[in-house]
Amino acid sequence: MSALPTDQNQPFVLRHDDEGVAHLRLNRPMQFNALSRDMLECLIAEIDAIAADEQVRVVVISGEGKAFCAGHDLKEMRGNHTLAFQQALFRLCGNFMMKLTRMPQPVIARVHGIATAAGCQLVSMCDLAVAADVSRFAVSGINVGLFCATPGVGLSRNMGRKEAFEMLVTGDFIDAHEAQRRGLVNRVVPLEQLDDEVAALARSICAKSPVAIRMGKQMFYRQLEMGIDAAYQLAAETMACNAMTEDAGEGIDAFMAKRKPEWRGR
Amino acid sequence: MSALPTDQNQPFVLRHDDEGVAHLRLNRPMQFNALSRDMLECLIAEIDAIAADEQVRVVVISGEGKAFCAGHDLKEMRGNHTLAFQQALFRLCGNFMMKLTRMPQPVIARVHGIATAAGCQLVSMCDLAVAADVSRFAVSGINVGLFCATPGVGLSRNMGRKEAFEMLVTGDFIDAHEAQRRGLVNRVVPLEQLDDEVAALARSICAKSPVAIRMGKQMFYRQLEMGIDAAYQLAAETMACNAMTEDAGEGIDAFMAKRKPEWRGR
Amino acid sequence: MSALPTDQNQPFVLRHDDEGVAHLRLNRPMQFNALSRDMLECLIAEIDAIAADEQVRVVVISGEGKAFCAGHDLKEMRGNHTLAFQQALFRLCGNFMMKLTRMPQPVIARVHGIATAAGCQLVSMCDLAVAADVSRFAVSGINVGLFCATPGVGLSRNMGRKEAFEMLVTGDFIDAHEAQRRGLVNRVVPLEQLDDEVAALARSICAKSPVAIRMGKQMFYRQLEMGIDAAYQLAAETMACNAMTEDAGEGIDAFMAKRKPEWRGR
Repeated sequence: MSALPTDQNQPFVLRHDDEGVAHLRLNRPMQFNALSRDMLECLIAEIDAIAADEQVRVVVISGEGKAFCAGHDLKEMRGNHTLAFQQALFRLCGNFMMKLTRMPQPVIARVHGIATAAGCQLVSMCDLAVAADVSRFAVSGINVGLFCATPGVGLSRNMGRKEAFEMLVTGDFIDAHEAQRRGLVNRVVPLEQLDDEVAALARSICAKSPVAIRMGKQMFYRQLEMGIDAAYQLAAETMACNAMTEDAGEGIDAFMAKRKPEWRGR
Repeated sequence: MSALPTDQNQPFVLRHDDEGVAHLRLNRPMQFNALSRDMLECLIAEIDAIAADEQVRVVVISGEGKAFCAGHDLKEMRGNHTLAFQQALFRLCGNFMMKLTRMPQPVIARVHGIATAAGCQLVSMCDLAVAADVSRFAVSGINVGLFCATPGVGLSRNMGRKEAFEMLVTGDFIDAHEAQRRGLVNRVVPLEQLDDEVAALARSICAKSPVAIRMGKQMFYRQLEMGIDAAYQLAAETMACNAMTEDAGEGIDAFMAKRKPEWRGR
Repeated sequence: MSALPTDQNQPFVLRHDDEGVAHLRLNRPMQFNALSRDMLECLIAEIDAIAADEQVRVVVISGEGKAFCAGHDLKEMRGNHTLAFQQALFRLCGNFMMKLTRMPQPVIARVHGIATAAGCQLVSMCDLAVAADVSRFAVSGINVGLFCATPGVGLSRNMGRKEAFEMLVTGDFIDAHEAQRRGLVNRVVPLEQLDDEVAALARSICAKSPVAIRMGKQMFYRQLEMGIDAAYQLAAETMACNAMTEDAGEGIDAFMAKRKPEWRGR
């Protein structure tokens, strides 16, 4: 467990590592894990540390208490009513979200309860998401006069534009099955199976070559931003370099010999 | 009701306002509401007027008669067989369609019957769409030797590329439920509930802060055209500015006091 | 039948034309139709020939034997373990894939069995796909230490990013119905109806004006790469030019006279 800045003597974010999986738990249950400035800074510090930690193969983000994450801390925003504070806050938040896609390890959102506003954005910006069937999703800022602009960036890159727009202007919730149908989450299971399903997905990724996962994740998000010709050029170069790694050689040899590969991570 | 240029003494487009909702009704029922040049000019005039009208919070576009809209007026196109006419017509149409996403108010398509060719494009370019279960959608120009190029722009930004391509090269219809599954429409209800469902969606948006909706809609379409980094920069700035509005202050205060907010629209 | 370079005296690719439809059959059944360098060169030669053949209106790509296509030839890759070979191989493959979207005729993938790695990419890059309900799809390179980077380019342009990412990092299969739900294939039928369904789709396209299909397909992929304003400009110009063709004139005249059009292909 890490011991980062605390809220009533509790760390904002709990980290617990187990067999290559770093579990980050948002730990402001009384505030529904609101993403205050301090919370965001803790998350960034944890993500930066994990990104540099070669022992970690997969990250799981979860929330303590009833909610997964209810977005920004409205009380803090209202108590710091300057444009400069708001600009710094939303830039910090965007910075955190982009780090999730830029870090080498895949990140899984483990969603057990509501994910609203920037909490819904957090789900959208994780590489993968597994949700309990009781979880619900909304970008509800519009109900307090605050259009969920930054959550809209992630949301509209996970689902159709009309689907995203409706959520943004109505603030309405969708349930977990609808979130899966739209592409916001990968898997939906009963709450009591949530940890098993997350563990199975994490284990599946941990069983792969770390160097291939790392090269692949980086390539994946870069090519999404490109035209298709440039995307193919980047992907072809990435795949050729990946094919020259020791792990790919071992993987192909093991496949042809019908044995299990032994990754060396390079 | 407006009194714009007429077709056999009937206005091409009827406007009727009710509690912040501007209802625009395509009114060429005998021509299945074909988008002739005059019809497009009327629509542009109405949209420009509504865009500048702060009393209007939501726009609903519907069609008189059996069809929602059957696309361009083939008779007019054939009777004006010059490249210059066709170029001007399709530019005018694209201009109208883009105005829907650029106007400050959300636009809902109310689809009660067939929406074909540029009529299907019109649905795709509205921010939201509610369809009767009897409605059907096609980009059927290919059946008369005319690939629905401009409808394809909207269609391929509402659904998957293979789904859009199949519709464009076959001209086949999809039903309302399939249109919803693909992301072309938001909600599908029995025909007799169509007006109630549209009204409920419109009311939900009218209950929100107008300034937040306006800032949000503009940001939404601009960020869709951007790479994700630039999108986050724009969204963070928009959200910071939105947070400094009177309405966001009121919205957050009301939320914390557990009372209903009173928007001042600034 | 063509007689291109052979593998144990069998051509790598079989071509068979029937009523405007060119059937290309991958013919390395013992290697699950692996896309070796020679296979890719044969495919490119066939595609280039078909692109220039005005008798061909639609292309159908299928596979001989149990699999549709199992991707690259791992044995060949392992036996030519230089960066230069790998770079040339993946560029060649990307070149082939892009030719499918650039050739004037629509291309249908007829998927009867597994489509994995570059075989799954091949499905993603065809304009349309019809799959047997027993077919399955995966980007399974990650299982041998080789992230499916180039397949990811096509895959992430057919389905949601989280859906694509999960397949890429787990290597897991999805079935044909799930592939359809995500947008990777257009139609799913029982295996015994696969040829009929492909034939019906091909016939539907063959019944259209060739000039309209050709102009439309080229425009479709170009506009997908553009911002929406530029897309509308291109589409409006394409549609105006299309409207001036003889076929569009004939198509509209036939429609108004309630008779069947007779295309002249210009």
